[in-house]
Formats: sequence, structure tokens, C-alpha cells
Amino acid sequence: MSGYIRMNRRRKIYEGKAKILYEGPEPGTLVQHFKDDATAFNKQKHAQIEGKGVLNNRISEFIFQNLNAIGVPTHFIRRLNMREQLIREVEIIPLEVVVRNVAAGSLSKRLGMEEGVQLPRSIIEFYYKNDELGDPMVSEEHITAFGWASPQEIDDMMSLALRVNDFLVGLFLGVGIRLVDFKIELGRLYEGDMMRIVLADEISPDSCRLWDMKSGEKLDKDRFRRDMGGLVEAYQEVARRLGIMTGGEANPPRGPVLVK
Amino acid sequence: MSGYIRMNRRRKIYEGKAKILYEGPEPGTLVQHFKDDATAFNKQKHAQIEGKGVLNNRISEFIFQNLNAIGVPTHFIRRLNMREQLIREVEIIPLEVVVRNVAAGSLSKRLGMEEGVQLPRSIIEFYYKNDELGDPMVSEEHITAFGWASPQEIDDMMSLALRVNDFLVGLFLGVGIRLVDFKIELGRLYEGDMMRIVLADEISPDSCRLWDMKSGEKLDKDRFRRDMGGLVEAYQEVARRLGIMTGGEANPPRGPVLVK
Repeated sequence: MSGYIRMNRRRKIYEGKAKILYEGPEPGTLVQHFKDDATAFNKQKHAQIEGKGVLNNRISEFIFQNLNAIGVPTHFIRRLNMREQLIREVEIIPLEVVVRNVAAGSLSKRLGMEEGVQLPRSIIEFYYKNDELGDPMVSEEHITAFGWASPQEIDDMMSLALRVNDFLVGLFLGVGIRLVDFKIELGRLYEGDMMRIVLADEISPDSCRLWDMKSGEKLDKDRFRRDMGGLVEAYQEVARRLGIMTGGEANPPRGPVLVK
Repeated sequence: MSGYIRMNRRRKIYEGKAKILYEGPEPGTLVQHFKDDATAFNKQKHAQIEGKGVLNNRISEFIFQNLNAIGVPTHFIRRLNMREQLIREVEIIPLEVVVRNVAAGSLSKRLGMEEGVQLPRSIIEFYYKNDELGDPMVSEEHITAFGWASPQEIDDMMSLALRVNDFLVGLFLGVGIRLVDFKIELGRLYEGDMMRIVLADEISPDSCRLWDMKSGEKLDKDRFRRDMGGLVEAYQEVARRLGIMTGGEANPPRGPVLVK
């Protein structure tokens, strides 16, 4: 039980919509706890979906491990238990970075493009993380003028975002899923005098749009946003295709596993 | 009457919310006609304000003439009459370029900043010109991905926008007015094998936020947007301070006049 953490002693650092961060066992570490809460439209919609946290913990672990393995720096150290992972403490940059391959969601609405249309190239968008303002879209001009990130950090974020996209497009293609878009968050990791930008937060069906390639079926949080039901089953299907063993399945069919 | 154009023969090229473009007297030229129409909030609000077109024609003439004189390329050739000017025909880039010096309007609302707060530096924003979509804000990523302008053209637009800002901040400072923000449009001017980006459209109290430095009084289209009344009087005051002779005034007080 190397990952055991005394539950009653931990100091809560931050509680978000779908996760809680606790003080970690060593300086510079945190414990990231995945809740079952689902929210959408800036918390106007809220529900508990049993099992979601466990699935996202496993899916995100799988993706972050494999990103670490190909040299994309992340905050992920190791999974601790069903709902928790040990991560490095970083200074979160107050931006959501969205990479889009296919028109959907807010891009379709704002720019009048039909959902499902392949974009001419991958597009990176930045949103200012602020619930009160509804996470408004911002450009590099706002980011640098208000000091949320430097021009060099923007370049680093965009490079990382494109590497993550390259990996994820390939990974999901391999299991019959179209990666429409996804959101990431990045943080500043301080090591002695050095600082570098690393991938933080999570990557899961909560933060991606994933469409089954054959049926077009949505395997992501849009099932919740659009009242389609079957969210846990969809997330389980993603985990199953990625070869991740989940709760009830003792010996699931395995897809590509780059890191065991 | 060198500027005389037969009204009944002209072909209308385009009619917008506040202006009409007619075929010009020579190839590569157009006549830009200033209407008295005022619209706001994507045409949800509409009115006729007598005299506005005449004032904007004169104010925009004054600004474009002086920009031409300092080497900022524009579409402006000369004023023809009370409501019309002769311009070069350009291919309008489908973007509104906004330069902001002080927080106001949509920036205040989107980013939760009090109106009137000086920004840490001038900020350039791009909006996709599309009435149906409500002119959504876009970033360089959208502009280049959808081919609305090339990266080089974005650089040229930003340079031009900053030059225009430098000039206008100075000009209005000289007559006791704070330039809060303004919107410009740019076009591609083709000359033989050459193409260059030039300032198009207009610059007037319809497209700027102008606050009196002492009283803070608004001297711009916000008087219409916010039902404050006194719009023509405010535009007349701007023209008067700039030393532009307007309708009823035979011998107005003159401010700085760089180009006669």
C-alpha cells in the first residue's frame, strides 16, 4: 500500500468542480482527487454521476503516463488509488487551452460552422479561467497585456498543446475514436532556479470531445451537457478501448498500451 | 465643381449600416456616401440622426488626410461634397480591428474590468465581420486557419493599427479628448503586380470612444447606444475642437490642423 495517505490528516488546498487537491506526502507534491460531480454551462447544470471520478482517474493516468514516456512534461507522478493520483505542485496558468480538429461546440456556434466539419488545420484557442466571467475567450494580446503568461510561455503552451494533440489523435484513431477537440491546463513547475511549463489538470472524456468513428456516437461529456444519458457507459467504453481495466471487468479486451 | 458626380447614373456597389458605396468616376475608385443612419447592437437598435453623416464625412476626411500625410496608407483620395468622398477601391479584409487604450464596452464586460481603467498597454483585438454571427471576437489562430488574412497581413494590420493609434491618441490629447478605443477596417489595394494593406472605411465618433478629458463626457456613439441623447451636438463638438468647419458655423474656433 505504497500509495496510502491518511485521509483525516490531509489539508485541502483547493476544491474545483470535478476535483479536489490535497497537500501531498512530500513538499512539492499534491494529491489530486477525482469526484463524481459533473457540471456544465458554468455550473448552471450539476449532477453526481457515480463512477465518473474513478474512470477519469484511470483514463487520465493512462494518458499522462504515456505523454511522460514520449517526453511531454506533465505534473503526473503516479496513481495512488481508485480516485486519487500523486502529482507535482505547479503554479497553474489561468488559461484553458483548447485544441480543435473538427468544428463543434462553441466554435460552431460562434463562427457559424456545422458540427463535424473538419477544420482546415488544428486550431488553438485560449480561454481566461474565471467562472464569474464564464471563461471568456481571449487572444495573445490579452494574455500578454494582462501578464497571464509571457510570449515565450504562450509559445511553449502552443507547442505542448500541439504535441498532446498529435499523440491523442493517434491514440484515439487506433481505437476507432475521432478526437474532435480537447481542453488542457498548464502550470509552471519550479525546480531550483529553473521553471518550465508542464501539462497539469487531467485529460479525460470530461475534457475531450470523442466521437465513435463508425457510429458518430458521442463518448464524452456532451452526453451530460445535452441530456443524452449513458455517460458512465460511454466513459467505460473509452476506458475499455484503451485497454484500461475498470471496476467490474476482471479481464477486459485490451487496446494499445504504450506504458504498462 | 470638380467633385460633381451625376447622382442618377451611379451604380450602387454596396449598402452598409451607415454608408453606401457607389461606382467611382474612374476604374479603381468608389464614392463613399455617409448616411444619417445610426445602428447598434447588431442593428437591434436603429435611428436616423440628422446631420451625423455630414459630420462623419468631415471628421473622417480630416483624419484620413492627415494619416496619408504621415505615410499611413489609406483608401482616401478626396472629399467630393457634404456627404461623399472619393476613395480607392480595395478588397476589404473581413475583420474589424479594435485598438483599446482604456477598458470600456465589450472588453469591460467580458473581462470584468471597470470602465475607465487605463490598460497596461494598448491591446489589439480582431472581430470577424459577420452580422448574422454578431461579429464574434477571433484570434490569429482563427484568422489564419480560415484564410481571412495571412500571418504577414496580420502583422501589417497590427503595425498600421498601432500607427493609427499613436496618431489619434496625440491628436485627441491635443484637443482635450481621451481616445478610449477605436475600430478600423483594412483592405487590400492592388496596384499592378503589387498588393498592400491600407486603411479603409472611416474613422469618426461612430467608430471611436472619445471622452472629454475634464468632464469625462462621452463624445461618441455610446450616446446613442446608451440612450444619452445629444449625439449630433457631441460630434459637432469633436469637429469644432479639430478645427473642422461644420454646417452652421461660418468661422469656428480652430484647433490643430496638420493638413489644410
